[in-house]
Amino acid sequence: MENIISSYIETHKDRFINELFELLRIPSVSADPNYSNDVFKTAEAVKEKLISAGADNVEVCATAGFPIVYGEKIINPKLPTVLVYGHYDVQPADPIELWHSGPFEPVIIDGKIYARGACDDKGQVFMHVKAFEFMMRTNNLPCNIKFMIEGEEEVGSDNLGIFVKQNKEKLAADIILISDTGIIANDIPSITVGLRGLSYVEVEVTGPNRDLHSGLYGGAVANPINILCEMIAKMKDDKNSICIPGFYDDVEILSAEERAEMAKAPFSLEEYKKSLDLSDIHGEEGFSTNERNSIRPALDVNGIWGGYTGEGAKTVIASKAYAKISMRLVPNQNSEKITQLFKNYFESIAPDSVTVKVTPHHGGGPVVTPSNSIAYKAASKAMEKTFGKKPVPVRSGGSIPIVAMFKSELGLDSVLMGFGLDSDSIHSPNEHYGVFNYFKGIETIPYFYKYYAEGCKG
Amino acid sequence: MENIISSYIETHKDRFINELFELLRIPSVSADPNYSNDVFKTAEAVKEKLISAGADNVEVCATAGFPIVYGEKIINPKLPTVLVYGHYDVQPADPIELWHSGPFEPVIIDGKIYARGACDDKGQVFMHVKAFEFMMRTNNLPCNIKFMIEGEEEVGSDNLGIFVKQNKEKLAADIILISDTGIIANDIPSITVGLRGLSYVEVEVTGPNRDLHSGLYGGAVANPINILCEMIAKMKDDKNSICIPGFYDDVEILSAEERAEMAKAPFSLEEYKKSLDLSDIHGEEGFSTNERNSIRPALDVNGIWGGYTGEGAKTVIASKAYAKISMRLVPNQNSEKITQLFKNYFESIAPDSVTVKVTPHHGGGPVVTPSNSIAYKAASKAMEKTFGKKPVPVRSGGSIPIVAMFKSELGLDSVLMGFGLDSDSIHSPNEHYGVFNYFKGIETIPYFYKYYAEGCKG
Repeated sequence: MENIISSYIETHKDRFINELFELLRIPSVSADPNYSNDVFKTAEAVKEKLISAGADNVEVCATAGFPIVYGEKIINPKLPTVLVYGHYDVQPADPIELWHSGPFEPVIIDGKIYARGACDDKGQVFMHVKAFEFMMRTNNLPCNIKFMIEGEEEVGSDNLGIFVKQNKEKLAADIILISDTGIIANDIPSITVGLRGLSYVEVEVTGPNRDLHSGLYGGAVANPINILCEMIAKMKDDKNSICIPGFYDDVEILSAEERAEMAKAPFSLEEYKKSLDLSDIHGEEGFSTNERNSIRPALDVNGIWGGYTGEGAKTVIASKAYAKISMRLVPNQNSEKITQLFKNYFESIAPDSVTVKVTPHHGGGPVVTPSNSIAYKAASKAMEKTFGKKPVPVRSGGSIPIVAMFKSELGLDSVLMGFGLDSDSIHSPNEHYGVFNYFKGIETIPYFYKYYAEGCKG
Repeated sequence: MENIISSYIETHKDRFINELFELLRIPSVSADPNYSNDVFKTAEAVKEKLISAGADNVEVCATAGFPIVYGEKIINPKLPTVLVYGHYDVQPADPIELWHSGPFEPVIIDGKIYARGACDDKGQVFMHVKAFEFMMRTNNLPCNIKFMIEGEEEVGSDNLGIFVKQNKEKLAADIILISDTGIIANDIPSITVGLRGLSYVEVEVTGPNRDLHSGLYGGAVANPINILCEMIAKMKDDKNSICIPGFYDDVEILSAEERAEMAKAPFSLEEYKKSLDLSDIHGEEGFSTNERNSIRPALDVNGIWGGYTGEGAKTVIASKAYAKISMRLVPNQNSEKITQLFKNYFESIAPDSVTVKVTPHHGGGPVVTPSNSIAYKAASKAMEKTFGKKPVPVRSGGSIPIVAMFKSELGLDSVLMGFGLDSDSIHSPNEHYGVFNYFKGIETIPYFYKYYAEGCKG
């Protein structure tokens, strides 16, 4: 297969880029109702791409929200089946003024594709579509394949859970393959074997029933912004441990050996700080940077707003202040339980001079995937083949909440073979995806199928 | 004069309302560059109103920012001169969605004029114009009068200071008369004898050099929103005292007698809480509500923003977080000194994992005006005449920073004879001004001139 895949990519590389650009031009922002039509339009575009790549029974499956695109190629029911999961929706593009080029006008600069969704996850999904096309057109598909590409990953995948529950037979498979993660570096391949869970809430603090003049009332009534800040400050102690009672109760404690093993992964703290322009790092006392963002939970304010935020000065005490707060969870924390603990704590620390409201957004459980399975070994061997180096197993700080759901609902493990880089600025302005990574993914995926099918044969 | 003034108001009341509405319809928001043309337009409108009321030498005096409208009537250089100060600019109208009617489409509902600036300060300025018109047309002006109406009061009056310094001769007077404050209630007239000063700053906290994915980085880098909240929380201790070192050093301490005298002012804490829908009040331990908002300094966050504030959820660690923070000052605190103390403290509590920037917006000194002067007595007698009750001297929590500047630059005291109510929602949505208060002002002002001229004669 070696020569064939390389020459196939070389022959079709311009088309592979152009077809991805078509998807990237549709602003499928699932969080913002203004883009609702575009999200539906993207589902139709994904459907067309799957059909032209050679998939059968392709359909845009309606849900209560955005649809799920399904397609399959069953070459022999007796062969193993790989279920490919990905998402075609993207994060909002704002702050839009920080983009150097239009978030939905993809361009290649210095070997990188710049666009919202270039890496997360349209670019990574489309590697699978093009690898599938290659296997179909060159007779190299060694097992069955199913695609399930959703449009609500960035807003909590609520309807995917319902879809999975209702379509267990249709989705029957042996393994789930997902490219929505990354590698350590282009010369240090890695495979994600752990993901953090997520609990995401929005909070509202109300003081007086209307905005007040800060001269006439300042000092005499609770200012909901000051109070919200004080409540957020109470979320962590001076060692940056989270203060919510019970928060750490279920946290898995790694052994000294496991931590020593983790510490072997290549990492330069100086380069990390330099790449982010940081004078100092910041986090839970007693843990390294790589531990803080993988095996330890975290609490971050993702957005805050209240009062006058325009030009100049306005002397007002706002009636309300708001924040969006997310917690990243590790095994064996439970998302619903943590959300409830947060709510209890937040309400308990609110002074009587304000009222507070906590609204859960979405969440999902943390995951650790096996690294001794046939599928993991196939992915490892495929990457070793194309990168020339055996990939490192790593635990990522990100969350793909549906991985835990796939395990509980379908009984299936997932292989998290992604090709992005931490520096790709996903969820940030100027998201990009290396042309190298895009083609390396297309090249690697067919090997996964080959080694996986061989492994299943025994 | 009694009969004349009442019948003059009765005869012209519709015109007095309509003319004020013309001013209110121009959105003279000085803080927002989008309204710049309207601010200039308002200055021209004020000029026309002064001319038609009978003023001489009316001019729109250019400054580096918005102009100052000047006009005068010198009937006899040997008579005393009253300098009327006011402002024609207004606060921003947002949050616009909370207005029941358009902020720049004045309407009268239940005897109140609803519009941005209805009370603060277009409505109160226009009372002086109409009282002047009455005195001119009925030969009742007993002394000289000068008008100085500026357009930058809501953004710090920077250019007024320069104008005053450069025009000391033109502005020569015996007393300054200002209506930019209020009375306790329509049946409890009062005169403001003290104002708090102001120090207003904007702060910026920068963490990583770009927005980051909160999964990949959460827990391992400083989140500037969390840090900003923690820094704001450190502004006050658990007794709601301000923690900035040196902040209270110059605060005037009132005697037990003075506090007991203050406590006699009519005030119901239950009604105060009810009118604001508050379960509890909140403020510096050891002081009453009326003390907290008048003789004690305060620190309030007037606006905060950072990260994702749109619909739904975005899992981002923002690169920057911002807040607008103001401090209300009391005698003998100095605005520049307090701004510097704030800056020093804010910088000192910032962890090394972020960088911070403090930008001073504007400020002004606190003021206590004499209550035994000829002018104060004239105001008191005028109000007693029209309200039927002697007004109470009160210290207000608001700031008119230029009052201290008038004293230092022109050597003039001010009389703060305002007719608004705390419930007028100035700086808030649905600002309004009672029709009663508007006409009561027009009725009272000519008596001030009468008693002041008589008092000066000895």
